[in-house]
Amino acid sequence: MNRSRAVVLLSGGIDSTTTLAVAKHQGYELYALTFRYGQRHEKEIQSARRLARVFGVKKHLILEIPLHLIGASALTDDIPVPKDVPQDKIGRNVPITYVPGRNTIFLACAVAWGETVGAYDIFIGANALDYSGYPDCRPEFIEAFEKVANLGTRAGSEEGQRFRIHAPLISLSKKEIILKGISLGVDYALTHSCYDPDPQGRACGRCESCILRRKGFKEAGIPDPTIYAEEQQK
Amino acid sequence: MNRSRAVVLLSGGIDSTTTLAVAKHQGYELYALTFRYGQRHEKEIQSARRLARVFGVKKHLILEIPLHLIGASALTDDIPVPKDVPQDKIGRNVPITYVPGRNTIFLACAVAWGETVGAYDIFIGANALDYSGYPDCRPEFIEAFEKVANLGTRAGSEEGQRFRIHAPLISLSKKEIILKGISLGVDYALTHSCYDPDPQGRACGRCESCILRRKGFKEAGIPDPTIYAEEQQK
Repeated sequence: MNRSRAVVLLSGGIDSTTTLAVAKHQGYELYALTFRYGQRHEKEIQSARRLARVFGVKKHLILEIPLHLIGASALTDDIPVPKDVPQDKIGRNVPITYVPGRNTIFLACAVAWGETVGAYDIFIGANALDYSGYPDCRPEFIEAFEKVANLGTRAGSEEGQRFRIHAPLISLSKKEIILKGISLGVDYALTHSCYDPDPQGRACGRCESCILRRKGFKEAGIPDPTIYAEEQQK
Repeated sequence: MNRSRAVVLLSGGIDSTTTLAVAKHQGYELYALTFRYGQRHEKEIQSARRLARVFGVKKHLILEIPLHLIGASALTDDIPVPKDVPQDKIGRNVPITYVPGRNTIFLACAVAWGETVGAYDIFIGANALDYSGYPDCRPEFIEAFEKVANLGTRAGSEEGQRFRIHAPLISLSKKEIILKGISLGVDYALTHSCYDPDPQGRACGRCESCILRRKGFKEAGIPDPTIYAEEQQK
């Protein structure tokens, strides 16, 4: 059994949680890395904490990164989160929820932490299909970053270690991601996708992230365990 | 005159200050970016603030990055800063003051901020000669990162902009860096190099950074304007 260590970027959503399950299934000792970055809510962090516990990660590091000072984005600014965007419009262009350079910053921190703890396998739930509008979710970006990781570290450049950036979901649809997660025993009730939950932490059901989540469960033929705020109101 | 915008990584030391002077001389509108990252002292931040003012930067962003949580290093941990290392031993191996992945994280933030403010020229004072022990100060690292910057951003990948990572000091010795800065009017009395200043903020004169600084001024035939703690004690 593989007992190498892996750093897994864990936001607490469907993609990163499935990625965590993949890394666990491959036998890695798990080091989960979560970022707090001026999100409007703590719900994502709570989900990540719970998931880290459920998956028995060796260590869970939560880093505060001031992305809101760096870039303008609906995820970190006071711009309203877009709601009810037609499905066929999602992912066509770079979405308003894009945070400039986010994955570059996240991967840079993951590699730095990986060098510190001796984890040279870095897992990211980047996905080129549903989020084609995010330039830092494409395979060529991941490849280029792997090169940077190996050139920019002691481990990669001098100690004969080799960082590998794993993006196991890169070419999967949301449906395929969910089916993969289910086959690995993921309890998606523990995950959180919504960009704009209500004060009780319930998903809005109408932001891009909720729409993609619902569509994914529907297409997978799996009941979505999420309790949406709008259903409660009925 | 070039009125493009440039993000300049500014620590307040000799290299980053000279880099700021180079960018100013090339006519860029300056956006200075400084990191607070668990350093033992605020002296570097103060130097950076003063320099940003003196150079008339358009904006100075100071970001708190929890590098001390990510990696072990004498710069951010409680390991004593090495003193009185023989000059010919400095830069031979990766020094204890190496912070894993530091320049990758810094450049990632610079590119993200650059995308936000429309600054596609990123300046870093990386230097391969005096600091050959830092893997993330080598030309091949800088080149690889430039590729990441262009693949991982909206500007680089969709909007026809092209990020360029400038490392104008990459092949200069400390002596050459100082001579270049002097020719551009830099007042090095405003800069700070020491890893381990005393409570009054005076440089120790004995850490690797002080030794390289003193050697640089000596070789350049320029008086070092720094007041060292040890001299005061005499």
